[in-house]
Amino acid sequence: MSHVKTMLDAHPQDDGTIDREKLAAAIEACLECAQTCAACADACLAEDMVAEMRDCIRTDLDCADICAATGAVLTRQTGENTAVLRAQLEACRTACATCAEDCEQHADMHEHCRICAEACRRCEQACAELLGALGSGAPGRGPGRTAPASTAPAPGA
Amino acid sequence: MSHVKTMLDAHPQDDGTIDREKLAAAIEACLECAQTCAACADACLAEDMVAEMRDCIRTDLDCADICAATGAVLTRQTGENTAVLRAQLEACRTACATCAEDCEQHADMHEHCRICAEACRRCEQACAELLGALGSGAPGRGPGRTAPASTAPAPGA
Amino acid sequence: MSHVKTMLDAHPQDDGTIDREKLAAAIEACLECAQTCAACADACLAEDMVAEMRDCIRTDLDCADICAATGAVLTRQTGENTAVLRAQLEACRTACATCAEDCEQHADMHEHCRICAEACRRCEQACAELLGALGSGAPGRGPGRTAPASTAPAPGA
Amino acid sequence: MSHVKTMLDAHPQDDGTIDREKLAAAIEACLECAQTCAACADACLAEDMVAEMRDCIRTDLDCADICAATGAVLTRQTGENTAVLRAQLEACRTACATCAEDCEQHADMHEHCRICAEACRRCEQACAELLGALGSGAPGRGPGRTAPASTAPAPGA
Repeated sequence: MSHVKTMLDAHPQDDGTIDREKLAAAIEACLECAQTCAACADACLAEDMVAEMRDCIRTDLDCADICAATGAVLTRQTGENTAVLRAQLEACRTACATCAEDCEQHADMHEHCRICAEACRRCEQACAELLGALGSGAPGRGPGRTAPASTAPAPGA
Repeated sequence: MSHVKTMLDAHPQDDGTIDREKLAAAIEACLECAQTCAACADACLAEDMVAEMRDCIRTDLDCADICAATGAVLTRQTGENTAVLRAQLEACRTACATCAEDCEQHADMHEHCRICAEACRRCEQACAELLGALGSGAPGRGPGRTAPASTAPAPGA
Repeated sequence: MSHVKTMLDAHPQDDGTIDREKLAAAIEACLECAQTCAACADACLAEDMVAEMRDCIRTDLDCADICAATGAVLTRQTGENTAVLRAQLEACRTACATCAEDCEQHADMHEHCRICAEACRRCEQACAELLGALGSGAPGRGPGRTAPASTAPAPGA
Repeated sequence: MSHVKTMLDAHPQDDGTIDREKLAAAIEACLECAQTCAACADACLAEDMVAEMRDCIRTDLDCADICAATGAVLTRQTGENTAVLRAQLEACRTACATCAEDCEQHADMHEHCRICAEACRRCEQACAELLGALGSGAPGRGPGRTAPASTAPAPGA
């Protein structure tokens, strides 16, 4: 999917604040993981032991939805939305790590789970690397912008 | 959309660990916000001053994608996926707060931005309340389950 | 979800060529059906007789994806895209009719299938009514625009 | 994205009624086209001449949604859903042809439109080839299954 990087390079806006190689790698990993998790959920559903695969199907479907959304958000370069990017990347890492853990338990038995676990680990890693590359600056949406003020109470408050 | 609560009540699994009223409210808020943000992005695109609405369109589209994914993940009750739920709810709160902030800046000028900002604030609030209701226990995927071990390095590490 | 109609009314572009009541009804029906089908798939997965519910789960998930995409496409009013709208509405009708047929077979046994079948029939109907309202004119993307020239061979050619 | 074919081969169900090479090619084309259209919409939004790119942005976003849904539906192999597949593939062809037509008009000026038009044409072609491979038999959901009975009136009736 070298087309991802090609499209990033063809974007008229380049503020130079993001590592495009890592960004393209994360987008590709998200899209591959979303498709693989959707395929794994469907393959698990067709297994004789489907009743034992319920948790795996659920985490597969959650991971597919989250990776697809993350890939879409990462694709946009117009303006800046760094706080959102960061939070969604954290959610994606968590979803990928959880799904990998579930699929790894069936990797010896089901080839689709083995392949899916690998796609999840690759995506978890790509999200982590992009998070690292986004910098350790104060949370915000870019230079000079502060994080949005929340009107909602903190959870548990 | 009372159908959301009706479907939750018709689900065969009920472990009693989640507040179904708050869950249904969050699902409904996510779906309403996703549709409203998609509509606001499209309305902004049709404005004469579209060039000044770019940032708003981008945050609208990001928020639409994230709310749709969050609504889908919240819909699933089979098994448990609490760590993922929590991370995705945090991302959704951030996306809604950010989009609300952007739309509020144009609320006097564009009715669609005013309505959209309100939908975003409702969704931000519903996510925060559900996060609070999920309990302040140790992160994990449910009783007796620990959070997934991550193989990826921490960002910035 | 009266917010759908409110957002349509707040859109700066109104070419008066589409019935907004029927459009809003179709968007709402698509979003309700997408969420209900996703919930039904998950409830079927949790049933003891999950092995017998495989076909129903698959049609539920297909219908959820198709309804969500149809709702998003219908939401956009900027420019015209009538040929695409029409084709997607036809696909949505087919998906809803198919899913309703599957769920109706389990409606006596599973309340979630009964509710889901009803949501599918409502969405099928709403899509059909909007298709009727789009007019029986020549296919195209609007007045003065012809359908896109295809470079792909006809299926089966 | 050879992982698509690998996952299809790892699926426990194989009724041999579908050409897996063409199926994998269509899934890959849908996913590439969805991502490319989303990127093109965002790049168009960042152009100085954004006001003239409105129609292109709208068809890009519609095409992205439809291709993503089509890719997800094609990914599922459990059970059969041929009538739905066929209708969704027709919608996807139409969306891709329309978006290609729009992007081709700006291909000389914007590299992202040129690349996007090519991705749309590839996806249009892959959908057409898969439609051809699905066979010219009577519409239905598979051997021995008839098309779903519709309760909705025909459009325009």
